[in-house]
Amino acid sequence: MTESAPPVGLIMGSDSDWPVMGAAAEALAEFGVGYEVGVVSAHRTPVKMMDYAQAAAGRGIRVIIAGAGGAAALPGMVASATPLPVIGVPVPLKHLDGLDSLLSIVQMPAGIPVATVSIGNGRNAGLLAVRILAASDETLRDRMVAYQVELAALVAEKEATLRASLGG
Amino acid sequence: MTESAPPVGLIMGSDSDWPVMGAAAEALAEFGVGYEVGVVSAHRTPVKMMDYAQAAAGRGIRVIIAGAGGAAALPGMVASATPLPVIGVPVPLKHLDGLDSLLSIVQMPAGIPVATVSIGNGRNAGLLAVRILAASDETLRDRMVAYQVELAALVAEKEATLRASLGG
Amino acid sequence: MTESAPPVGLIMGSDSDWPVMGAAAEALAEFGVGYEVGVVSAHRTPVKMMDYAQAAAGRGIRVIIAGAGGAAALPGMVASATPLPVIGVPVPLKHLDGLDSLLSIVQMPAGIPVATVSIGNGRNAGLLAVRILAASDETLRDRMVAYQVELAALVAEKEATLRASLGG
Amino acid sequence: MTESAPPVGLIMGSDSDWPVMGAAAEALAEFGVGYEVGVVSAHRTPVKMMDYAQAAAGRGIRVIIAGAGGAAALPGMVASATPLPVIGVPVPLKHLDGLDSLLSIVQMPAGIPVATVSIGNGRNAGLLAVRILAASDETLRDRMVAYQVELAALVAEKEATLRASLGG
Amino acid sequence: MTESAPPVGLIMGSDSDWPVMGAAAEALAEFGVGYEVGVVSAHRTPVKMMDYAQAAAGRGIRVIIAGAGGAAALPGMVASATPLPVIGVPVPLKHLDGLDSLLSIVQMPAGIPVATVSIGNGRNAGLLAVRILAASDETLRDRMVAYQVELAALVAEKEATLRASLGG
Amino acid sequence: MTESAPPVGLIMGSDSDWPVMGAAAEALAEFGVGYEVGVVSAHRTPVKMMDYAQAAAGRGIRVIIAGAGGAAALPGMVASATPLPVIGVPVPLKHLDGLDSLLSIVQMPAGIPVATVSIGNGRNAGLLAVRILAASDETLRDRMVAYQVELAALVAEKEATLRASLGG
Amino acid sequence: MTESAPPVGLIMGSDSDWPVMGAAAEALAEFGVGYEVGVVSAHRTPVKMMDYAQAAAGRGIRVIIAGAGGAAALPGMVASATPLPVIGVPVPLKHLDGLDSLLSIVQMPAGIPVATVSIGNGRNAGLLAVRILAASDETLRDRMVAYQVELAALVAEKEATLRASLGG
Amino acid sequence: MTESAPPVGLIMGSDSDWPVMGAAAEALAEFGVGYEVGVVSAHRTPVKMMDYAQAAAGRGIRVIIAGAGGAAALPGMVASATPLPVIGVPVPLKHLDGLDSLLSIVQMPAGIPVATVSIGNGRNAGLLAVRILAASDETLRDRMVAYQVELAALVAEKEATLRASLGG
Repeated sequence: MTESAPPVGLIMGSDSDWPVMGAAAEALAEFGVGYEVGVVSAHRTPVKMMDYAQAAAGRGIRVIIAGAGGAAALPGMVASATPLPVIGVPVPLKHLDGLDSLLSIVQMPAGIPVATVSIGNGRNAGLLAVRILAASDETLRDRMVAYQVELAALVAEKEATLRASLGG
Repeated sequence: MTESAPPVGLIMGSDSDWPVMGAAAEALAEFGVGYEVGVVSAHRTPVKMMDYAQAAAGRGIRVIIAGAGGAAALPGMVASATPLPVIGVPVPLKHLDGLDSLLSIVQMPAGIPVATVSIGNGRNAGLLAVRILAASDETLRDRMVAYQVELAALVAEKEATLRASLGG
Repeated sequence: MTESAPPVGLIMGSDSDWPVMGAAAEALAEFGVGYEVGVVSAHRTPVKMMDYAQAAAGRGIRVIIAGAGGAAALPGMVASATPLPVIGVPVPLKHLDGLDSLLSIVQMPAGIPVATVSIGNGRNAGLLAVRILAASDETLRDRMVAYQVELAALVAEKEATLRASLGG
Repeated sequence: MTESAPPVGLIMGSDSDWPVMGAAAEALAEFGVGYEVGVVSAHRTPVKMMDYAQAAAGRGIRVIIAGAGGAAALPGMVASATPLPVIGVPVPLKHLDGLDSLLSIVQMPAGIPVATVSIGNGRNAGLLAVRILAASDETLRDRMVAYQVELAALVAEKEATLRASLGG
Repeated sequence: MTESAPPVGLIMGSDSDWPVMGAAAEALAEFGVGYEVGVVSAHRTPVKMMDYAQAAAGRGIRVIIAGAGGAAALPGMVASATPLPVIGVPVPLKHLDGLDSLLSIVQMPAGIPVATVSIGNGRNAGLLAVRILAASDETLRDRMVAYQVELAALVAEKEATLRASLGG
Repeated sequence: MTESAPPVGLIMGSDSDWPVMGAAAEALAEFGVGYEVGVVSAHRTPVKMMDYAQAAAGRGIRVIIAGAGGAAALPGMVASATPLPVIGVPVPLKHLDGLDSLLSIVQMPAGIPVATVSIGNGRNAGLLAVRILAASDETLRDRMVAYQVELAALVAEKEATLRASLGG
Repeated sequence: MTESAPPVGLIMGSDSDWPVMGAAAEALAEFGVGYEVGVVSAHRTPVKMMDYAQAAAGRGIRVIIAGAGGAAALPGMVASATPLPVIGVPVPLKHLDGLDSLLSIVQMPAGIPVATVSIGNGRNAGLLAVRILAASDETLRDRMVAYQVELAALVAEKEATLRASLGG
Repeated sequence: MTESAPPVGLIMGSDSDWPVMGAAAEALAEFGVGYEVGVVSAHRTPVKMMDYAQAAAGRGIRVIIAGAGGAAALPGMVASATPLPVIGVPVPLKHLDGLDSLLSIVQMPAGIPVATVSIGNGRNAGLLAVRILAASDETLRDRMVAYQVELAALVAEKEATLRASLGG
């Protein structure tokens, strides 16, 4: 990671989280927002995690997206060591359908918030990062509005297809 | 609400949510961040809610905090009609300990994220709004760092008190 | 959609809900009850959803069936903008087995009810719409009674088959 | 119960359910909809329950509201023996916060639907009965629209009060 | 079913429950305990169910095993109309892993107990029926003791095999 | 405990379970069924528990009722060391509302059943013991039928009282 | 904390955890095992927490007990930075009855175990620390055996008292 | 099992638990810690289980790892009859994703702790046994530190691979 870091730091507890977290990267790319990718584990690389969190703001990172599963300490721990907004993605593991990941990430004590998105929803983490950056960037905000218009158009298309398939 | 709105819009489904949501207001005030307060119900005032969401960005609001309980549609619906980052606060009702509120807020479909904080944790919603604004405001970010230092100092104090009480 | 709408409006948040919601259409068809099908998403097409809900009664719709998954706001939001009875179908998503969908739909605040059926049970939504229309239509009610007699007969048949297979 | 029964039959498994179910009666009264009240237990008075369900439509009842707690069989059993729409109210007991009541009522098998409302929400059961009757009664539907307008006005009032209390 | 019924009545809400309930039949057969099999649905054949429950004791049935899934009313409803001990088997459906079935069966109100066994465990329902009959039949009780000895021997065998496979 | 034991052994993990388990004793007394009371803890008195379970049948006990909370091993362990039917009562502790107690008792492996009743429902455990003994005792079965008639009468009385209080 | 630390380090996320964690201290004192008490928060004092964990073994600590509530990262994070056995105590907060605390502590990824005890059970954490130390200390193990004998005696006493109160 | 037993006793309720429990054996082998394997069922071999637990300490066993599923009594029962530290592994069964196993193992009453690890995580049980033995064995503790360093290195490798695959 260089001194002039991209605006979003995208980290995850394990490379096996990529199927979920890659969707965040894809969303960021769609909006032309730069990001860096790291595998940083709260429990397997605690020192690296602390270093990453403490250095992020100084390096130019403005939003951190952190995904983890099970006793998912990563998002909260990173939030504890940075003043940046941290987005947490509950990655579902083999058992419990991500409920443990969700509660471990969202139930933070007063003082240290984590912006939690839905279970396994890396895309929404990316879109939330865009919205956060767009809070001080009108061009980006306009793109988000345009994206929301596209979403609506997509629904209309799907409706047309469904009705056609029903002979309606 | 005037044309030059404060940076944070703080809304809730019912005035009975104030004991939870007031803590968000308090946190914002501590950081000198302006906010406006509204009672906006997704299910009882759907038109007002849509109007609020659609107008917010244009009025100058930069972050919306929305709290609701049970089938808590407010945060997600507001997010659907604004490009701004929306923070959702699951307000616990009489039954189910806020689990219904949490799932109704956090489990958003791909496309429309809500930044969800812990059950009943209005304070963290306020602090998350500060972090989001601080992503493009170094002065505010410094204050957040200072706040985190205070948090640590407070823990040290409490430790001293506890040890003293144990005669240790 | 024309001015003289059929009695039942069948909407869903996504065309991927059709495997669940199609069973509602099938049940309505069996009872000779007309319906229209729409893809209307609370979070992706909030304006269309509000328009649909506000216009439904005036267009002649008498019962609305709405299916959605996850943070399933559609049934409740539609109910907030129409005086018609709204039937909610919790569509199960990949995680949590539909528990999030169920709670998001059924836990409505006092003032705005949603008639919720079992998880993934589109057929029961269709049958409930028939019962509601039958509350003021004796012919339809007689058909429902006949259907219930058929259900009982089907159980007797299955019992006979099972016993035969056991050599009993 | 006389031959010319009121349009709504309001039954509950135990008189201890009245604090929840009385709110349904109140809602019906507000809309001028007649109702009769009965204590009918699926497990303690199964014969009476079957008799009630089988006779209801013939007696002139058009909608049944049934509340019960725990292994709450009443709403589903009544629905099994009548073609009328049956509204189920999950009454929370001392343990499990009504989750058992909710699942026992809502998770009906294909063929026999129960229109389930939120845990402990007798009022919504009453309002849903009104909506069902209003599906074929324009005057009643207009009253429901008026009620929804009042709900919105009430929210506005509460907002004003909250803002005043905040000195805003 | 004849006047001189076997000691155990084995009923289920649907023939699709047989993969679970057949294991109860198998256990009964192993102990030489006679049984009859029926498909009796609380919600699809309520009258038949009541008739079955009311007649069972008079016909010579001494224990009833009832399996059902979802809003599983069958075991409790049968228990409400017979003085015989009723064993309930929670059959898991497609969603919720049988938790709804379990709560619907076990959470009976004071007055009417159902002897509930583990989710999907038809075999244990059969063994429990044997234990109940054995409470007044020493020969049968001796067979149960012998069965428990066999269970222990089976574990010893499996241990030997496992150790052998580990080269231990 | 003497050689000629009463037909029911009523044991519990702790004397603090008496408020729940005393209701079982009361039910047994109402039906004139003898019982003995013991405090036997699976985890604090494992040897005593094994001795109790192994000796019970020989001493003349015919049904065992066992109540416990949390990681409630008592009912299952007793069932493992006796051929008698064992009724398990999930006693709710301070946290989790008895869900842990319920799952620990009901989810027995194939081979060793426990007849589980509802959370905190000692009365139903007593009534289930009566039903089990009544499976081979017509006089007792007649009393159970009479009790069920009384239950129905009690509901009718409560209905009358409720209606009177409503001025109906 | 001095160089020659006691064998057990007892830490908690907040001084408000003392009502739960004090019971661990009490158990240690009963067995004559020395301990030190600290307030160390994963989220409010991440650096102090890392320092504590990294130094513990070198200072002479042999077992760490860590209690925390909600998104309870403390036990797992400490375990990530020490080779010592770490005992986790899920402290229940105002909502969710400690289920979030339990899952956040127990669901650790492969590589870093936390020895989790029951919700709110500080005493068992203390006793587990004693058992761990006793694994290499026969005198301590003998004391544990004696304690278990006392537990059994206490149950016998309680049984006698209960029976006496029942006039048995 | 000989008089001079290895330091770890690894037991499980059924040989079908081996896919989970074998990972504990593997971890122990990696650290050069000896173990013995047994199939010991609380419910199918209660006498053998009690014998095993009572004899373990005298035979030289220093830590017991016990895995079981469903109403998983094994770890707690073994803990009740030995002063040794007992590690419990919740083995997930076909339904409920191991939640029943977890609660049955972790929710032990005050007095008898079980050191519970995550659902299905045999490896962590093995590693926890190593940490417990390492509490009085510096060589072993050094190996654990080395293992933790390897874990961190492995994460770094995976990060490099992921970045390479992203062309980063």
